Amino acid sequence: MEKREIFMREAIGLAGRNASSVTGGPFGALIVKDGEIISARTNSVTPDKDPTAHAEVNAIREACRKLNTYDLSGCTLYTSCEPCPMCLSAAYWAKVDKIYFAAGRDDAADAGFSDAFIYDEFTKSMEERSIPIEQIMPTEGREPFELWKKNEDKIPY
Amino acid sequence: MEKREIFMREAIGLAGRNASSVTGGPFGALIVKDGEIISARTNSVTPDKDPTAHAEVNAIREACRKLNTYDLSGCTLYTSCEPCPMCLSAAYWAKVDKIYFAAGRDDAADAGFSDAFIYDEFTKSMEERSIPIEQIMPTEGREPFELWKKNEDKIPY
Repeated sequence: MEKREIFMREAIGLAGRNASSVTGGPFGALIVKDGEIISARTNSVTPDKDPTAHAEVNAIREACRKLNTYDLSGCTLYTSCEPCPMCLSAAYWAKVDKIYFAAGRDDAADAGFSDAFIYDEFTKSMEERSIPIEQIMPTEGREPFELWKKNEDKIPY
Repeated sequence: MEKREIFMREAIGLAGRNASSVTGGPFGALIVKDGEIISARTNSVTPDKDPTAHAEVNAIREACRKLNTYDLSGCTLYTSCEPCPMCLSAAYWAKVDKIYFAAGRDDAADAGFSDAFIYDEFTKSMEERSIPIEQIMPTEGREPFELWKKNEDKIPY
């Protein structure tokens, strides 16, 4: 079996075990670096009471803790299901090299999850979205960026 | 001053103070419920070594801890800058009622942040994206969802 299939089986196995528990969601994810699993996590939204505790976000956060960095360059994300927009963006901010996923967003939708719905929201204008979103005080809002540009001690990321 | 302007000034003030520090990013966010601030946080990616520790995600996670729930229905998110795709999706998963933002994604881009870049990635096909993303083992990937559907003790969310 190819290495990538071994890792994906691990992610799917985590998802399956979590799917059969009371507290879990049916999702699992790994961060792999140089052929080794750095982190292996499931969705923990309900037990942690944290709506951001998706498998991928959990795996990214744990890998960062273990590697003591916010930059996962050189790492691969394996996830049992296509990352939702939150998790896909988290992978971008973490700068992973590559993402493998197994099930698709429509499989998640079929099981009652909003991944596809949120992807669709991104294609709409702000006025058309289901959560109202409105810009106010744009001029004042730019001030922190001006301070940031002038800050010579900052750590860019 | 309108209430929403008072809250936004607070979010922008947090962003500004953080922008001038060594460890911060120039972003601040609040979760407000029934006219009271539940959480008020800045970006903490570099000090926490956590690429998901944006102001909005931090504020959502803290509000959930304080209110002991993963459902922020009835809450409003105020953020000093348009939420990046990760934070916007986190707001959807948290089910906030409304989002106010001040600066726009182009202001963030002008200060060196990738928010607009990641938004653009969402409009591209998987083959065109800067982080390669590939589906493997789709049949096996659906198995956890079948287990989830059969799980009668689960907590849907």
